[in-house]
Amino acid sequence: MKKILVPVVLTVLVVVAISCTKKDGSKGVITGGMEPLLQSALDAGMLPIPYELKVMEGNPSSPEKIELGKLLYFDPRLSKSQLLSCNTCHNVGFGGDDYQETSLGHGWAKGPRNSPTVFNSVYNTSQFWDGRAADLKEQAKGPIQASVEMAATPEYVVEVLKSIPEYVEEFKLAFPGEADPVTFDNVAATIALFEATLTTPNAPIDKYLRGDLAALNSEQKAGLAVYIDQGCVSCHTGVNLGGDGYFEFGVFESPDADVVAGDKGRFALTQAEGDEFAFKAPTLRNIEYTAPYFHTGKVWSLAEATQLMSSSQLGIELSEENIKQLLALMDAFTGEQPQIMYPTLPPSTDNTPKPVWK
Amino acid sequence: MKKILVPVVLTVLVVVAISCTKKDGSKGVITGGMEPLLQSALDAGMLPIPYELKVMEGNPSSPEKIELGKLLYFDPRLSKSQLLSCNTCHNVGFGGDDYQETSLGHGWAKGPRNSPTVFNSVYNTSQFWDGRAADLKEQAKGPIQASVEMAATPEYVVEVLKSIPEYVEEFKLAFPGEADPVTFDNVAATIALFEATLTTPNAPIDKYLRGDLAALNSEQKAGLAVYIDQGCVSCHTGVNLGGDGYFEFGVFESPDADVVAGDKGRFALTQAEGDEFAFKAPTLRNIEYTAPYFHTGKVWSLAEATQLMSSSQLGIELSEENIKQLLALMDAFTGEQPQIMYPTLPPSTDNTPKPVWK
Repeated sequence: MKKILVPVVLTVLVVVAISCTKKDGSKGVITGGMEPLLQSALDAGMLPIPYELKVMEGNPSSPEKIELGKLLYFDPRLSKSQLLSCNTCHNVGFGGDDYQETSLGHGWAKGPRNSPTVFNSVYNTSQFWDGRAADLKEQAKGPIQASVEMAATPEYVVEVLKSIPEYVEEFKLAFPGEADPVTFDNVAATIALFEATLTTPNAPIDKYLRGDLAALNSEQKAGLAVYIDQGCVSCHTGVNLGGDGYFEFGVFESPDADVVAGDKGRFALTQAEGDEFAFKAPTLRNIEYTAPYFHTGKVWSLAEATQLMSSSQLGIELSEENIKQLLALMDAFTGEQPQIMYPTLPPSTDNTPKPVWK
Repeated sequence: MKKILVPVVLTVLVVVAISCTKKDGSKGVITGGMEPLLQSALDAGMLPIPYELKVMEGNPSSPEKIELGKLLYFDPRLSKSQLLSCNTCHNVGFGGDDYQETSLGHGWAKGPRNSPTVFNSVYNTSQFWDGRAADLKEQAKGPIQASVEMAATPEYVVEVLKSIPEYVEEFKLAFPGEADPVTFDNVAATIALFEATLTTPNAPIDKYLRGDLAALNSEQKAGLAVYIDQGCVSCHTGVNLGGDGYFEFGVFESPDADVVAGDKGRFALTQAEGDEFAFKAPTLRNIEYTAPYFHTGKVWSLAEATQLMSSSQLGIELSEENIKQLLALMDAFTGEQPQIMYPTLPPSTDNTPKPVWK
């Protein structure tokens, strides 16, 4: 697998390097040879965030769909209370999540799991902590309907949107071939397409992976060596530095009970013995923005989370120096945050269902 | 008063007309004489939204302060739960308020009064429905501390902000002369300065008031004649078409009990007999975006609200045609909605207080 991957990566790298040279005059391209550390990172499957929009199978994109999806993402009227929107728990100004242990939803209910960041989520192999949604479109349908989140129904959402002429028009523009385009399925499709635009490219790690050897400082490079040599990279790799595999939480040592909270993760879905306490490895991109950590959000300190990972997943005790180097490296995982113009939502009409907060 | 005001208005008008001519090639300026309807509107004190930022006494503005105020306006960490921000109830994509009867706050509590729009609020003579805050700075301190809103304390807010190095830096830049600029007072000052930028200029009514006679269609002009002749304009005038005086709710006829909800308005503040059931007349700008109406938010239909106003405040029953004309006019009260780039909030640190949702 790796042997096939490396030439592909190198090809990508060369192409990107050429295009970078064309665009910004040779900044951020491989200038000398490739240092062994970079080679190891690429060998381990680490990849920069592509500049092109990721294509989602069965959900073709268009500017009209993205624009509509953006309105819907910010519209609290998709919730029963008409106070909560996708952006409440996946705040685009707040690392793409909510800085809560687990999210607050309808009726001030506490949800069961920590809100994962929406940023770069299009690069996850599946969605939710247990991977129960195949893609962002399927995911988007969940929180809108969950009683402890937005507490709405597909019928309610469609009724709201059909009561607002501007929305009906936007759906027609986004789905020109459809006779009755205001559907819950199209709501989820367009939200997913907007979310696919929420990437955070050009982190120092991306520049490094593209061959800019100066993009990481020496402490960060030391951190990268630890990351690769000690095995962090086995779960946190690919474009998203995570998000592409399920792993038992507590391979070598069980974390504290309050961190696990009896949540068996993927097992509830598959009933497969090997899936007990298995969760999708979260992305480490923008990790400084996505506290608190783990599915319960019980760990607030990134140093503590890193220490816990090394003991529970790798069966080692990292030195203080190594932790410091890894923290420096993770600083380099923060990319350019999405620049989103706050959309002006079309006004309700006399026919729009009223908010219900009970 | 009016005799003094009119020449001032005309001077402003001429100056604006000249500057418009320079900027955009004579669009939107007085081309022929002034039609009597426009003269009546100006005589009644109706004014367009100025293009310049309004100066607030004792709170000098600067780009650094506005930028900081914007971050704070969007930051949920100013609330005890770290989920609610100013933008939750004064949503910049949603007419500057929340489409709720009364706002939902900490613990899912229902507040006592409808959330007024933040848009153009700098032009109100005072803030809150009862005018208990002299200006936006004083206002901003209220909801942050109210137990049914953001439920925080000044000490908590300062502790949060001081735990985040980027904020400390922003405060230093915004208040260069101060030794310890991270104060609750400066939080309120900068939020107010950001809010002062949230105006909605260039509504058709503004263009008309500047002399563009074609900016209103004939139905809207008929509506404006009703608005002036029947007396709507006596409470809803000035730059904000409201917001500059207190009036008893139910001068001629008491509205339904559920619309008043026993709220004596300004009386609770002043204990003055004349203030019983007196409220600040709300702005009518962007009124199509600010349903539901009145301090209780019990009326969702603008037609119904208009009918209610005519019977309760003017002692008349408007014809259906007149209501239709007034609704057409109020369409022309919608201006350009603010274009806000969603700010990226600086990340919390290990020292940042954690959210408390109980």
